[in-house]
Amino acid sequence: MAFDPQARRIVPDPPARDPADEESLDVWGFRDTRFVARADGVVVLTGSRYALSGQELPELLGWTQRQIHPDVRPDDLNRPHYPPAIPPPRRNQAFLDELRKSFADDQASEDPELRLRHGHGHTQEEMYAVKYGALERVPDLVVYPAEDAQVERLVEAALRHDVVLIPYGGGTNVTDALRCRADEARTIVSVDLRRMNRILWIDPVDRMACIEAGAVGREIAAGLAAHGFTMGHEPDSVEFSTLGGWIATHASGMKKNRYGNIEDLVLDVRVVTAQGVLERPSVHPRESIGSADARRFVLGSEGCLGIVTRAVVKVFPLPERQVYGSIVFPDFPRGVDFLYELQQAGDVPASVRLVDNLQFQLSQMLKPRKEGLGRLVSQAEKLFVTKLKGFDVERMTACTMVFEGTRAEVAAQEKRSYAIAKRHGGLAGGAANGERGYQLTFGIAYLRDWILNHYLIAESFETSVPWSRALELCEAVKERIRAEHAARRLPGKPFVTCRVTQLYPTGVCVYFYFAFYFKGVPGNPSEIYAEIEHAARDEVLARGGSLSHHHGIGKIRQPFLGRIASPGQLAFAREVKRAVDPRNVFGAGNQLFGGDRHP
Amino acid sequence: MAFDPQARRIVPDPPARDPADEESLDVWGFRDTRFVARADGVVVLTGSRYALSGQELPELLGWTQRQIHPDVRPDDLNRPHYPPAIPPPRRNQAFLDELRKSFADDQASEDPELRLRHGHGHTQEEMYAVKYGALERVPDLVVYPAEDAQVERLVEAALRHDVVLIPYGGGTNVTDALRCRADEARTIVSVDLRRMNRILWIDPVDRMACIEAGAVGREIAAGLAAHGFTMGHEPDSVEFSTLGGWIATHASGMKKNRYGNIEDLVLDVRVVTAQGVLERPSVHPRESIGSADARRFVLGSEGCLGIVTRAVVKVFPLPERQVYGSIVFPDFPRGVDFLYELQQAGDVPASVRLVDNLQFQLSQMLKPRKEGLGRLVSQAEKLFVTKLKGFDVERMTACTMVFEGTRAEVAAQEKRSYAIAKRHGGLAGGAANGERGYQLTFGIAYLRDWILNHYLIAESFETSVPWSRALELCEAVKERIRAEHAARRLPGKPFVTCRVTQLYPTGVCVYFYFAFYFKGVPGNPSEIYAEIEHAARDEVLARGGSLSHHHGIGKIRQPFLGRIASPGQLAFAREVKRAVDPRNVFGAGNQLFGGDRHP
Repeated sequence: MAFDPQARRIVPDPPARDPADEESLDVWGFRDTRFVARADGVVVLTGSRYALSGQELPELLGWTQRQIHPDVRPDDLNRPHYPPAIPPPRRNQAFLDELRKSFADDQASEDPELRLRHGHGHTQEEMYAVKYGALERVPDLVVYPAEDAQVERLVEAALRHDVVLIPYGGGTNVTDALRCRADEARTIVSVDLRRMNRILWIDPVDRMACIEAGAVGREIAAGLAAHGFTMGHEPDSVEFSTLGGWIATHASGMKKNRYGNIEDLVLDVRVVTAQGVLERPSVHPRESIGSADARRFVLGSEGCLGIVTRAVVKVFPLPERQVYGSIVFPDFPRGVDFLYELQQAGDVPASVRLVDNLQFQLSQMLKPRKEGLGRLVSQAEKLFVTKLKGFDVERMTACTMVFEGTRAEVAAQEKRSYAIAKRHGGLAGGAANGERGYQLTFGIAYLRDWILNHYLIAESFETSVPWSRALELCEAVKERIRAEHAARRLPGKPFVTCRVTQLYPTGVCVYFYFAFYFKGVPGNPSEIYAEIEHAARDEVLARGGSLSHHHGIGKIRQPFLGRIASPGQLAFAREVKRAVDPRNVFGAGNQLFGGDRHP
Repeated sequence: MAFDPQARRIVPDPPARDPADEESLDVWGFRDTRFVARADGVVVLTGSRYALSGQELPELLGWTQRQIHPDVRPDDLNRPHYPPAIPPPRRNQAFLDELRKSFADDQASEDPELRLRHGHGHTQEEMYAVKYGALERVPDLVVYPAEDAQVERLVEAALRHDVVLIPYGGGTNVTDALRCRADEARTIVSVDLRRMNRILWIDPVDRMACIEAGAVGREIAAGLAAHGFTMGHEPDSVEFSTLGGWIATHASGMKKNRYGNIEDLVLDVRVVTAQGVLERPSVHPRESIGSADARRFVLGSEGCLGIVTRAVVKVFPLPERQVYGSIVFPDFPRGVDFLYELQQAGDVPASVRLVDNLQFQLSQMLKPRKEGLGRLVSQAEKLFVTKLKGFDVERMTACTMVFEGTRAEVAAQEKRSYAIAKRHGGLAGGAANGERGYQLTFGIAYLRDWILNHYLIAESFETSVPWSRALELCEAVKERIRAEHAARRLPGKPFVTCRVTQLYPTGVCVYFYFAFYFKGVPGNPSEIYAEIEHAARDEVLARGGSLSHHHGIGKIRQPFLGRIASPGQLAFAREVKRAVDPRNVFGAGNQLFGGDRHP
C-alpha cells in the first residue's frame, strides 16, 4: 500500500571501497587503466574494467598520424617528470592546535603528493604543469572530516585563525577551480569530503534519499540500485565526481531528459558557511520561500560560499527497461535537424547525443580488432552504408541514444525516434554501436593523458546555445581554431571535433575537443593551447553560446564574466559574497569571487 | 525548415485593453462580476464573462445555511463601508521634483483610492480592513513607468532621496506582501508596472518570448496564442496576476506537469536593483554560471531585492488537443492513492486536482439550475453513482484533470488515468464536470467577497507535503481548525475543506479553504480568523508541510520563518539583503527582509 505508515526509511550500509579502485594521482582515472602504444603501433587500454580494456586497437595510431601529425610514434615519447617540485606547507600553528582537538591524526595530511593532487583538477594547464612544469602554490594541508560536526569545527577554526578552506570532492573539474592563487599568503586547507560518502537514508515512498556530499557517483548509483532506485544523474565524470561537486558546479547528467539536471534533483542541502549552518528541519516537494532556501545560493557556488555536507535528492525506481540505440546520418546538419524535430516532438529519450564526422571516425578507430565473423559483419555494415546508401565516410555522423522507462515508454520512444530519423536521412545503426558510444565517454577521458606522452595536447570545453545558432556556432568555433592554429604555424593539422550532448526545448549543449601536436614548437605548448582556447571561447560567445553549460566558470573562464553579465549583476553577486563571507574563508577564488584581479 | 536563418522573431502588437475588463478596487476580480443573493434565496453571478455568469444557483444558500449557519440570509447584510479613511500622502518634494524630469504627469497619482488599492492584496485581514476597518499606512504615491529606463530613473531617485519602492503587479497576493509597515517614516512609492505589459518578441524557432513584467496572465495567453504559442503558466490568479508577480512570488501554474513551474519557465530576467541593472546580453538553454545568473536572487524575492522589468520565458506550441476529464471516488483516501499511483506511473496529465467531499458538495451547489432533459440526466447520474455504485454523498470526492498534447499523448494519458482510477474504485465523471471544476476556480475567488457581506469570513492557504504525510496533514489541519473553532465557541460549524492541486514525484500541494460565521461574535472576526489560521499553519508545519508551496511568505507567514530554517540560513539571507540594498530602498519588508521585528 502506497501510504502504509509503517513504510520505513531504508538505511543502507556504508559503501565498501574496493582497493582495486584506487585512483591515479598523476593522470585521469583508475590506477589500473591507461592507454599504451605498443612498439608494433597497436594501442591497448590496460586493466579489465571497461569493455575496451585489454582489446587491441590496431588503427588508432595510424589514424592519429593521418589526422594530426605523422610523427606521432610509439618510440617518440615526451616523458613526464611527475611529481614536480612541490612547495613546502605554510603552517598556521594555532589553527593546527585547534584542529587537533576535533580531528584524529589520520584525518589530516601534509604529504606533498596529496597536497599537490588537491591543488588541481584536469585542465590541460594543470595537467601539463604537474607533468612538465610545476604548481606555484598548492594546499598546505589536506583535512578529511568524517561527519558534519567536524566540518563545522573546521569552519569555526578557519574563521578564528584566518585560514582558507577549499572543498574537494572528486578533483575532476576542468575549470582550474582547485588551483590555488599564488598570492594567497594564508594557510590553505583542502577539505576532502571522501570520508563523508554515505547514503544516510532512502525513502521509498516519498522517493527521496539523503546522501553525504563526499559520495562518489558510482557509489551513489550502486548504493541506490541495491534498493531498486537510481538518482539518474550521470555526468561523464560519474565514476569519480561527488554529489557535493555536482552541486557546487551546477552539473548536468547525460540522462537529464528523464531525470533532470542537478537543480531539478536536489530537494535540500546542508551547507556550513561563515554565517553558520544553512539547514532546514524538513524537506518538501516544492516551495515558495525565497531566500530561506539555501539551494539558490549554493548551487553553482564553486566552493566560494560554504561547504556542502549533505543533500536530499530525488530518487526514481530503476527503469524497467534500458535500451541503447544509434542512428547514422549523411552529415552533421541533418543530424541536428533530427535532434530539433525529436526535441519538439516531446518525450525525448533519456539521453541523445550527436557526434560530428571526426568524432564518428574516432569512435570507429576505437573499435577493437575483430576476427572471423565479427570482422565480416563489420565490413558488410560499412559497405551497406557507404556503397548502397551513398554515405560519405568523410561526412557521415552518428547519434547515440539511451532509452529508459517502462517497456511501453521505451517502445514508443524508439518508434518515434527512428521514424523521425528516417525523415532526415538517418539509418538505424544498432544498439551495440549506441552502447559503445557511451562507453567511449569513459575511455576518452584516458586518451588525453596518453596522447600528451606523444606531444599531443588536448582539452574539452562546452557551451549551450539556442537551436537557431547551434550549427553556426559549431562551424565557426572549428573554423576559428583552425585559423588560430594556422596563424601560429603549428605543425600538422589541428584536431577539432564536437558533439551535441544535451537537448532542451530552447537549444542544445555542444561539447568540443581540440588537440594539436607540439613537438618542436617554440614556447610553452600549454600556454599556446590556452591562447587558442581563449579565442575559441571568444567565438563561442560571439555566436550566441553561453560561457558554460555545466563545467562552471572556475578560474579559467573568469576573464569572460564581464561579457556575459552587466556591471550591476557582477557588483550584486560580489556584494553577496563580501556580506556572507567577509573574511573570504572560502577563498577558492572561483567565478565572480576571484577578487580584484578579475573583471 | 527548422534552422532557416531567415526565421525572424515575431514582434506582436501591444495588447489592447478592453474597458469592459476594468477591475474592482474593493473586491476581487472584474467590476462586472459579483455574486448576489436575491430575495428569493437564489444566488446569481452578475455579468456574462464566465460560464456561471447569469445562471441561477438555487441550492447554494440553503446548503450554506446547513453547512455553516442557518442565519445566512439574503436580507441580513453586513454592509462594507469601503472606502475607509485613507491616510494623506507623505511627500518627499526633492524626490517628486526629480521624478518630474523623467515621468509625464499622468504617470504618477496621489489619488486616495488608488493609493489604498496599492497598499493591499487579498488576505482576509486586508479585505476586512478596507471594508470594515482601515489601513494605517498605504503608499504615498503610485507611479506608472512605461519603459525600463524609467524604472532605472525611479530607482536612482529613490536611492538619492531615501524613498521606499514597492513593486506592484496585479495586486492579487494573499500574503500581506503589499501591506505597508505602519512604522515606515519614509515616502512609500508603489511602482505599478501595468504600462509595461508588452510581449517584446517571440522566437518561434528557439521557443522563447521576451515579455515585460507588467503583462497580465490573460494578456500573455492571448498575445502568445495569436501566434500559435502558450507559456503554459496558469496560476488560479492568471486573469489578473503578472509575469513580474509570478517571478517575485515563485509561482506555480495548474498545468505545471506539462509546462513546469515559474522557475522552469523563466530563462532570463532583467532586474533594476540598488547595485544597478542585472541583465545579460544573450539567453541560453541552460547554464552553469552561478551567481552571474540573476534568476537565483530574484525568483521568490517578493519585491525586496529589486524590480523585475522583463523576462525571457519558454513558450510551447499550442497543444493539438485539450481535453477535460473527471473521476469520482468513494472517499478522499482512495483519491489520494490514485494520485500517487498516477504520479509514479509518469507522463501525468497537464493538471490533476482532487477535491475533498465538502468541496465536491460545494461544486454541486454551484451547478446552475437545469430544466428538462439536463435535469433528468443530472438526476440519473446521481442515482447511478449513489444507488447503483453505493457511493456516499457525504464521503465521495472528485478528481478533475486537464489533458494536453498531441492526440496520441492525450489518448494515452486518458487511458492510463482511467485505468488506474478504476483500480482505486474511481468512476469516470465526464469531461463537462471536469471543465466545470476548473471554471469554478475562477468563480470561487469571487465567493469570498460575497459571503463577507453575510458575516462569513474566509481565506485560503496552501502547503506542500511529502506523499507519506499528505493524508495525515489534511486530516490534522481540519481537525485543528475545528478544535480552534470550538474552543472559541464560535457560532455554527466551521467550514474547512481542502484539495490536492499539484502532484510531484515526492509529494503534493494541498490547498485549504476555511470560513466561519461571525455575526454576534465579540471582538474583531478578522483577528480571530488570523489566530485560527496561525494555529492551522502551526499544524501544517508540525505535520511535515512547507510554509508555502506557491503563495510565498509575505508578511503573513514571517512569524514561522524561524521554524523552517536554521539561524545560519536566516542570517545568511539577511546579510545578502543588507549588502545589496543597504538603504532598504526595496523596503516592502517581506519574507526574511522584514527587519528586526521578525525572527
